[in-house]
Amino acid sequence: MTGRDGGADIGPIGNSPVVILVRPQLADNIGAVARAMANGGLFHLRLVAPRDGWPQAAAWRNASGADRILDQLTLHASVPDAVADLHRVIATCPRPRHVIKPVLTARGAAAELHAICDLGLRAGLLFGPERAGLDNDDMACADTLARYPLNPAFMSLNLAQAVMVMAYEWWAATDDTPPREMVTNETGTATKGELENFLIHLTAQLDACGFLANLPKRPGMIRNIRHFFQRGEVTRQELRTLHGITTELALGRRLRGRVE
Amino acid sequence: MTGRDGGADIGPIGNSPVVILVRPQLADNIGAVARAMANGGLFHLRLVAPRDGWPQAAAWRNASGADRILDQLTLHASVPDAVADLHRVIATCPRPRHVIKPVLTARGAAAELHAICDLGLRAGLLFGPERAGLDNDDMACADTLARYPLNPAFMSLNLAQAVMVMAYEWWAATDDTPPREMVTNETGTATKGELENFLIHLTAQLDACGFLANLPKRPGMIRNIRHFFQRGEVTRQELRTLHGITTELALGRRLRGRVE
Repeated sequence: MTGRDGGADIGPIGNSPVVILVRPQLADNIGAVARAMANGGLFHLRLVAPRDGWPQAAAWRNASGADRILDQLTLHASVPDAVADLHRVIATCPRPRHVIKPVLTARGAAAELHAICDLGLRAGLLFGPERAGLDNDDMACADTLARYPLNPAFMSLNLAQAVMVMAYEWWAATDDTPPREMVTNETGTATKGELENFLIHLTAQLDACGFLANLPKRPGMIRNIRHFFQRGEVTRQELRTLHGITTELALGRRLRGRVE
Repeated sequence: MTGRDGGADIGPIGNSPVVILVRPQLADNIGAVARAMANGGLFHLRLVAPRDGWPQAAAWRNASGADRILDQLTLHASVPDAVADLHRVIATCPRPRHVIKPVLTARGAAAELHAICDLGLRAGLLFGPERAGLDNDDMACADTLARYPLNPAFMSLNLAQAVMVMAYEWWAATDDTPPREMVTNETGTATKGELENFLIHLTAQLDACGFLANLPKRPGMIRNIRHFFQRGEVTRQELRTLHGITTELALGRRLRGRVE
């Protein structure tokens, strides 16, 4: 049964890390995990000894269409069985105690997972049960631990949230969107010359209406107005609107002037 | 009423961005949002016209102890009212259409939020209702938009997950944990000299038992063994264990030799 039979298309499935939920308790969370995985481009899910058995309809109800991940997941009796065919395993663990292992941040783990998968090796991510987290034997099945940088005063992280952060970092690791970019849709960013045309228009109207009549202060006032309009990118569409506003305000003033 | 009366301590509250849920539908999600906020060090919550009214017991049940955030949230009739005292507003929006605005990634937004808060200004983050997201009038109240890098084939992001990603990036922006570090707990990383002592001990025992008896192959075999033990950091505690294993295996062999 493929996910295309039910649920949403969730994109192409390549060699991405396997998410392994160890003794998960709540079907709701398993569904929310599938949804978070689809958000971040992780598609392979395994369950180790889910408390309430499997399948559970509540998981599908909570997956918001990420059915394919639930349809195709595999069930395992133990962590060693769930990781047997994998080459590298990272265990998520908020507070590793008495464990001697390399510890990765979520971002560090995402980078390592990409490096592993790029080599054609299979990687897995272990997530512990809701209440207790992974036990010491579970962690001994992993090469490395991952611990997210989060508020140490409040570490109670929901299971699906834990998966979400890792799925997000997995996706973000290969995303090259600039941290900030102007979205202009059908119009485009105005050039400095187009902005200058508007500022000349505005200044002429402000001269005409007497706003700049104080000649000693006029250069400074013009500079301040220029600073405001220079503060960020302006689009050609916005400049057309500003030209129109300026013209109509000036016209309205003149019309009023005739009436009054 | 302070959160210390009920719920967990969630850490110190400084000038951090205000999370504003616009027309949220489900009390469960409001609780999950509070929990995610506490995870990432965001403490100020505002609700604009929650569909089912406020307060709702389900929110506290789902907050896992982040009660203080719910106890102290404020209710607002409109987005303009909710943002009136803020200096900068970022609206989260997975698919901005017909909007001319700078768009930030989640990481870019976190950097800007820290810059704003470091200046002593108050920042807010708008999150839309579960089904529809923010509408165009909501977005017109914001300076910038934030769009997370996530799987474009599956953009259905749970409200609390959307808050989680931003809270995580808010916390991670000032976290300086190395992406990978060895956690050794009470012991420490062994020096190369300590490792050499073990390799000398091991080689001596392997010579004694005949494992290295093929003299032409002996140097290469020793090198391969060295490569294995050099592969990652080793702790002093682990070296003591390896010394013990080597001694006991050799002793056991000799004891068996006497018996057989």
